[in-house]
Amino acid sequence: MKNYKNVELGKLDEIIRLENGKVFLHDKLELSGCEVSINTVPGGFKVPFNHRHKQNEEVYIILKGEGILTVDGEPVNLKEGSAVKVLPDAARTIENTADGEFEFICIQAKQNSLEQFGLADAELC
Amino acid sequence: MKNYKNVELGKLDEIIRLENGKVFLHDKLELSGCEVSINTVPGGFKVPFNHRHKQNEEVYIILKGEGILTVDGEPVNLKEGSAVKVLPDAARTIENTADGEFEFICIQAKQNSLEQFGLADAELC
Repeated sequence: MKNYKNVELGKLDEIIRLENGKVFLHDKLELSGCEVSINTVPGGFKVPFNHRHKQNEEVYIILKGEGILTVDGEPVNLKEGSAVKVLPDAARTIENTADGEFEFICIQAKQNSLEQFGLADAELC
Repeated sequence: MKNYKNVELGKLDEIIRLENGKVFLHDKLELSGCEVSINTVPGGFKVPFNHRHKQNEEVYIILKGEGILTVDGEPVNLKEGSAVKVLPDAARTIENTADGEFEFICIQAKQNSLEQFGLADAELC
């Protein structure tokens, strides 16, 4: 069995054509440590509900455009290079506040599951 | 205590000015489920060694440019929209094969740590 799995998602701005403007990687790559969504949404897009998580911490990374992540009622302004961790219990929703496309990646991984990382988890070979 | 933490990394192509062309999110955001690096490297850049991981699965997501991820000696071509999972034990290295900038995100999370995700881990609120 190969030690990797890959997929071609195409140009990231074309993700806007997919359902809800997002693609998930867990099933495509058979991930076991996290779920990842890549999102490209049009001007005016807003997730029409808040949600929490039971176990998973989320990380949002903004690639393009401008938006707001509302966390427990508090707005966090987003633009290219914004990165936000959201703890599981927080109520959150995200919106595109500009006219153009808004591109972001959202990672979810189980809170407190990472035991080691970086050089502590790596070995040269 | 707030249920989120955020940071502004600035324009992603400016990351090329940082050491090794990368920025890590674990410490900046006090992550507990994954480590994330955002990388912008110049033409000709190549990581000069292979590495494996002890516990962590990696996911590479290519944002811009062209490169090759070599996994256990096998080249995987990369361009915008390529996504690759690499299992911990695989020997890997990455290089920019074009003249322009190569931008990618690398996530590491503990293999088999994700218990549930998507709707199974979420609740509307």
